[in-house]
Amino acid sequence: MTTTRTRVAIVGAGPAGLLLSHLLGNAGIESVVIDDRSREQIETTIRAGILEQGTVEILEQSGASARVRTAAHRHDGIELRFAGDGHRIDFADLVGRGVYLYPQHEVLKDLIAVRLERGQDLRFGVTAERVEEPASALPRVIATGPGGERIVIEAEFVVGADGSRSVVREAVTGSQTGGYFREYPFAWFGILTEAPPSADELIYSNSPNGFALISQRSETVQRMYFQCDPDADPNALSEEQLWEQLQSRVPGTTLKEGPIFQRDVLRFRSFVAHELLHGRTALIGDAAHTVPPTGAKGMNLAVADVVVLERALRALLLEGDSRLLEAFPETASHRIWKAQHFSWWMTSMLHVAPDASDFDRLRQLGELRSVVESEAGRRYLAEAYTGWPLEGLA
Amino acid sequence: MTTTRTRVAIVGAGPAGLLLSHLLGNAGIESVVIDDRSREQIETTIRAGILEQGTVEILEQSGASARVRTAAHRHDGIELRFAGDGHRIDFADLVGRGVYLYPQHEVLKDLIAVRLERGQDLRFGVTAERVEEPASALPRVIATGPGGERIVIEAEFVVGADGSRSVVREAVTGSQTGGYFREYPFAWFGILTEAPPSADELIYSNSPNGFALISQRSETVQRMYFQCDPDADPNALSEEQLWEQLQSRVPGTTLKEGPIFQRDVLRFRSFVAHELLHGRTALIGDAAHTVPPTGAKGMNLAVADVVVLERALRALLLEGDSRLLEAFPETASHRIWKAQHFSWWMTSMLHVAPDASDFDRLRQLGELRSVVESEAGRRYLAEAYTGWPLEGLA
Repeated sequence: MTTTRTRVAIVGAGPAGLLLSHLLGNAGIESVVIDDRSREQIETTIRAGILEQGTVEILEQSGASARVRTAAHRHDGIELRFAGDGHRIDFADLVGRGVYLYPQHEVLKDLIAVRLERGQDLRFGVTAERVEEPASALPRVIATGPGGERIVIEAEFVVGADGSRSVVREAVTGSQTGGYFREYPFAWFGILTEAPPSADELIYSNSPNGFALISQRSETVQRMYFQCDPDADPNALSEEQLWEQLQSRVPGTTLKEGPIFQRDVLRFRSFVAHELLHGRTALIGDAAHTVPPTGAKGMNLAVADVVVLERALRALLLEGDSRLLEAFPETASHRIWKAQHFSWWMTSMLHVAPDASDFDRLRQLGELRSVVESEAGRRYLAEAYTGWPLEGLA
Repeated sequence: MTTTRTRVAIVGAGPAGLLLSHLLGNAGIESVVIDDRSREQIETTIRAGILEQGTVEILEQSGASARVRTAAHRHDGIELRFAGDGHRIDFADLVGRGVYLYPQHEVLKDLIAVRLERGQDLRFGVTAERVEEPASALPRVIATGPGGERIVIEAEFVVGADGSRSVVREAVTGSQTGGYFREYPFAWFGILTEAPPSADELIYSNSPNGFALISQRSETVQRMYFQCDPDADPNALSEEQLWEQLQSRVPGTTLKEGPIFQRDVLRFRSFVAHELLHGRTALIGDAAHTVPPTGAKGMNLAVADVVVLERALRALLLEGDSRLLEAFPETASHRIWKAQHFSWWMTSMLHVAPDASDFDRLRQLGELRSVVESEAGRRYLAEAYTGWPLEGLA
């Protein structure tokens, strides 16, 4: 058994955990980050790819990513397509902000590189088992190393940034699953294809056949999704059938087809942990909440959590002032529930529920029309999509 | 049997039928209006009381009501109350328009008076039985007079403005019930009380105990509602219990109590007829659609139908041009489905569904916060509440 003592023990080397260790490092606060995955797994898993402008600014200004501003593709709008027509939501014009297409694993590569370069204690292949005495002045993470050895990390504060299957959650909420949740009767069938982009910006399409999202990754690789049954078998459809499914849901656009080299089914879930803080242990990112992917809030909400918690930890650990920490659950929840609403709204406005009546369907089109025909409606959507200001969190 | 020949036969002397006859009369187009109710019944039944600014303008400019602008109370906003706080939606500031508190039966008194003064053939106590040959060049309404006599009204056009239990509907849609619909697991318990106003403007309150609406009628009579079970017995609660129910749903305001002299349960239903036009027979107002009362769209939507249909009938009957009539279903549907969405939205955002989970409830509060914290969100709501421009219908 090896015991390490640090100021902040962070479980999870995803965007939330790594960015937190980085901001803490900038403030002179030492931390240890552990993750049960290997560095390669973390750096190659394809995840979300839309960054709010505030997320990009944090990454850039904190030195977490030197590349993000130049390597990311700025998108100044999205298209909502329904009833045969496309309607652009012009973010630049409506709110003077944009979003950035920059895959999550690229953010992670940047963060891992900069943390290691700065001497961060960052351990891959280390599996957290539990948190002991989470509410005490010296909580500790009990973990198992790559060789099966027992590792104890004692800290002044423990952070669960360990994703939707969080191990830390139990120490905060009292149970592994304790939270508010909602399930959805559909999922996304996602593909990666080697092809040029079919559109310059994201197309969110509500079609009688169901939802589709035409997204981009790079000049040569594209990401597309279509609504499917949550129990769909990713391998049941041929490439030709996949293109047919996608094409039938974006009438008016001829998709540029290419070989499909990855396919997966993303289940939808809305979740918020019952508690975000217990004594000296907190939850952030997917450990605290998950959102359905429509609206691309997942990673951005994790970054917003980090901003709030890091400020609170600075006050606690540098000045002995616990007031911001005590306010953390309420401050973070404010944005979390707005984001939960936005993700639910985009999901329910754009997907065709299997049990939707004709009334529901026509109301949905009435809603989409109400939004796109009103400058206020478009702006309300654009504000949420591009992200509420981070400074408003304080 | 008596047979009358006219240009337009209108079934129903509610706001839609009477206003249509009035606008047609202004254009020199003769009509006959029948209603199975007595004049007294029509003039004393308490119904909705919020007029959009466009509705007031039509009533005033057409000479339908000389009193409306002076007698109505202009409201420049509403309050949304939730989580213990009130948030004003300032219509005047957001959209430069307002709404007018003017009970529907006052509109009807004005319309009946002006129509009779101008020699309108307006018959009370006449029950429409059916419409024959609705698609022919000479459709006719078969009706029964107060003494049981058979009445036939032959016309170039027949209009069903005969409310949610429309008899004309069958001639248009092929069945008495044919339509898109949605039911709701709650209703409104409405009271009329002799008391001074408890607030200057309407309060829409989302409380843990359910929805309440604090509304006004005059300086001495107030209208209030609270969410109840659709099967609630209006007489099961004492006055004291009614005030307790109401008071518990608007924490922060002390309601001014008085004797309760009317109580009723309003069931909620969303409905749109499958067809709005068949040959030379059309549906308008509640015969074409009903909305839940949250958002006060019912009468205003009826007036919007009238504006579209009257223009089409003028083109048809004065110029022989049927193009606007052919476009009537699509033109009217555009606004109808936006209003259906708005009414559904206000209803679902403000009521507590009996099967709502904790997630649903917190998401709802996240939604309310998103709306009131955003100028765009407030304006999007204000635009719909005060009414989309009528001129946009053409």
